[in-house]
Amino acid sequence: MIKYPIKKELKENDRIKSTANRGMNLESMINRTNEFYLDNDIAVIYKKPIPIQIVSVDYKKRSAARITEAYYKLPSTTDYNGIYKGKYIDFEAKETKSTTSFPIKNIHKHQVNHLKRVKEHGGISFIIVYFSRLEKIYFLDSDFVIEYYERSLKARKSIGLDEFEKNAYLIKEGYRKPVDYLSVLDKYYL
Amino acid sequence: MIKYPIKKELKENDRIKSTANRGMNLESMINRTNEFYLDNDIAVIYKKPIPIQIVSVDYKKRSAARITEAYYKLPSTTDYNGIYKGKYIDFEAKETKSTTSFPIKNIHKHQVNHLKRVKEHGGISFIIVYFSRLEKIYFLDSDFVIEYYERSLKARKSIGLDEFEKNAYLIKEGYRKPVDYLSVLDKYYL
Repeated sequence: MIKYPIKKELKENDRIKSTANRGMNLESMINRTNEFYLDNDIAVIYKKPIPIQIVSVDYKKRSAARITEAYYKLPSTTDYNGIYKGKYIDFEAKETKSTTSFPIKNIHKHQVNHLKRVKEHGGISFIIVYFSRLEKIYFLDSDFVIEYYERSLKARKSIGLDEFEKNAYLIKEGYRKPVDYLSVLDKYYL
Repeated sequence: MIKYPIKKELKENDRIKSTANRGMNLESMINRTNEFYLDNDIAVIYKKPIPIQIVSVDYKKRSAARITEAYYKLPSTTDYNGIYKGKYIDFEAKETKSTTSFPIKNIHKHQVNHLKRVKEHGGISFIIVYFSRLEKIYFLDSDFVIEYYERSLKARKSIGLDEFEKNAYLIKEGYRKPVDYLSVLDKYYL
């Protein structure tokens, strides 16, 4: 059963921000944000290409080599990494239509281990979760990701919205920086 | 005309190292080195997947989605990045059969700009160049990459081996760490 978002009162600010990014998926919003960071010399953060297993390539044509058979591979790390104020930054971004919880299975074990390693080596690692029907974007530190992942192995398989409200940071939206996650770093990490 | 490597006297050490990695290409050697770093909890550094433009995918089959048409894209960043001792690390790796110089055109303008940005933001950026016929692997700081790249726009299109000898660091080879580039960081950067 799909639960629809509860009706909520919109403040002027909310209306502006939700109009700005309406219909954009999380990846597009983060990419646009990263471009803003790059163009304004704020940070150098990129999405990694999708890992692909190439099976066969056609070199016959004069033009570019054409890949004719390939498959998606499971990523061993996260989608985004880069540098901000001298710090190594690493995160995974996920979107959910649920209005109540985020299913942990959306983050692979490899990715959880990767986030953990990054933190142990002195980087900043986290996940960004977009509750699209609620139009809320959360920044959750990898410490909680690890904790919830370990819990999911024996108990609850998802992270409740209430847990995001308690342990995650809400990321401001905006037009030029649709997902301004670095503002969270400025406020709570650096 | 292909120039063959000049005969050189092998010392005991040289013989050991060249046997260890004989026939391996640079990418394999770096991947193996990165695995060693990861397994021994020294650093978290990965090669990024090859960027690919996917044009068409066959979802018909019950099994995995099959990509049936795709093309290689020019990378906008470098091949490798990650974290070591809290520092953001970023580099590109190239191999040449030349025994006298490395052609700058092997490094794209985007990549040069990326290396420059990384350094400006407090990371460590460089290129690794493998002269395969000489069995020599050099670590060249991005400052020199930028300098030689700019020079190539109006004058010399390559970096001479003598310039590597003067301005780059020779990377030790070994069996477990075929390209131990972090030893250069330990010695000269950290």
